[in-house]
Amino acid sequence: MTEQDKEITALSFDLLSNVRVVMVNTTLPGNIGSAARAMKTMGLSDLVLVDPKKPINDEAVARSSGATDILEAARQVATLDEAVEDCSLVIGTSARSRSIPWPLLNPRQCAERTILTSKRQKVAIVFGREDRGLTNEELAKCQAHVHIPTNPDYSSLNIASAIQVICYELRMAVESEVNPSPEFWGVDWDKELASAQEIDGFINHLETVMVESEFLDPENPRYVMTRLRRLFNRSLPDKVEINVLRGILSSISRKMKS
Amino acid sequence: MTEQDKEITALSFDLLSNVRVVMVNTTLPGNIGSAARAMKTMGLSDLVLVDPKKPINDEAVARSSGATDILEAARQVATLDEAVEDCSLVIGTSARSRSIPWPLLNPRQCAERTILTSKRQKVAIVFGREDRGLTNEELAKCQAHVHIPTNPDYSSLNIASAIQVICYELRMAVESEVNPSPEFWGVDWDKELASAQEIDGFINHLETVMVESEFLDPENPRYVMTRLRRLFNRSLPDKVEINVLRGILSSISRKMKS
Repeated sequence: MTEQDKEITALSFDLLSNVRVVMVNTTLPGNIGSAARAMKTMGLSDLVLVDPKKPINDEAVARSSGATDILEAARQVATLDEAVEDCSLVIGTSARSRSIPWPLLNPRQCAERTILTSKRQKVAIVFGREDRGLTNEELAKCQAHVHIPTNPDYSSLNIASAIQVICYELRMAVESEVNPSPEFWGVDWDKELASAQEIDGFINHLETVMVESEFLDPENPRYVMTRLRRLFNRSLPDKVEINVLRGILSSISRKMKS
Repeated sequence: MTEQDKEITALSFDLLSNVRVVMVNTTLPGNIGSAARAMKTMGLSDLVLVDPKKPINDEAVARSSGATDILEAARQVATLDEAVEDCSLVIGTSARSRSIPWPLLNPRQCAERTILTSKRQKVAIVFGREDRGLTNEELAKCQAHVHIPTNPDYSSLNIASAIQVICYELRMAVESEVNPSPEFWGVDWDKELASAQEIDGFINHLETVMVESEFLDPENPRYVMTRLRRLFNRSLPDKVEINVLRGILSSISRKMKS
């Protein structure tokens, strides 16, 4: 584990151990198992089941794929009120349109608000039935609703997939606390990047070999060198790569002259 | 469907119909079905299977939960090269550490890069085997790798869940093109928010009733009014809510005087 991984693990424990996933009136125990797996991959552990239609069974254990500790620790209660009584922020998952609009978050905003609160207090994120979600009465017990954006023509998101998306955003929020703006390229690169002078030295070397090979007419170079310069600059070469390329050019040059 | 939904649907067709999900050497047909469902919920449709261990079967159809059009249209090919030959950007999913580091994206960055390219050209996102992902040789065929952040102590992400997360970020990227900075509160609110003057009028009315009821001693109000002001301001009340609250106060006031 890298130092950064250790920092993320410590922070994710601080921020995510206060976040509870509540599943209301779930029909299929397999979905409870998949939910436990989804939670554990993202570092969550507190699962509460409100009046599930069937108890945790072998199918749930199989689907949890080793996240049995989450299933074993899961509490079962009779009502949503019991599930969230110690939570300071309760967010319910919801399809978009409701007769009375409620404060509505997307999953990213849900994660931001959750980890602001979970530093000190418990947060519950509540997921409804497989077929029809949460009732209006249950949603009215929540301070905010979260809606996962979906294809309006086919919004049939599996409940464990919904939990995966919400928990993924929580983990992304934790990681961005440690590393606010990861780079596109060159993260954890093993070699130092080449300097502008080193890249320039290579391009000049390449041009020499191109002329020696009679590929390039030095009287009429056109744009070919500019195109090659753009290509190699764009790839942000490291020092070892530039050395390898120059080694190849030197060998070719020697061979052509011999 | 709202106007904004229509705009998102049109844009998601433009940007996501060029994005292909490639599953390499999948063991369980059920996972192919779950993947089709995950793709369709987010608006993707192009699925290519590289040498699956078993063909699409009843379990796959059951798990696709109605996304059978994706399964029916899925192409099956023998090699990864065939699957991506017409793609200009190929991104492979990978666990973090590799002996030779590769340009590494998180799922959000993967979505940003993908929709920059998919406006004009095809993009493939490649998912490996359930048990051991993509080989180093397969990963070396990719321009970039994407890593889904996970709990370092338990990174057993289900393959359909991984596809769900990647496709979710693609949909978020499309939606943010239409609506770059959604508000926390008050999105699609049905009533106009109350003005500062209206809120102030209500607070003064409330204070009057509190004095009439002898809850509040006007000679010694302490901080109670400030606290109530903070509470109601924070909730960003709308005009109808303020009217309802003032109606309640008026009724109470009349009753107390009668």
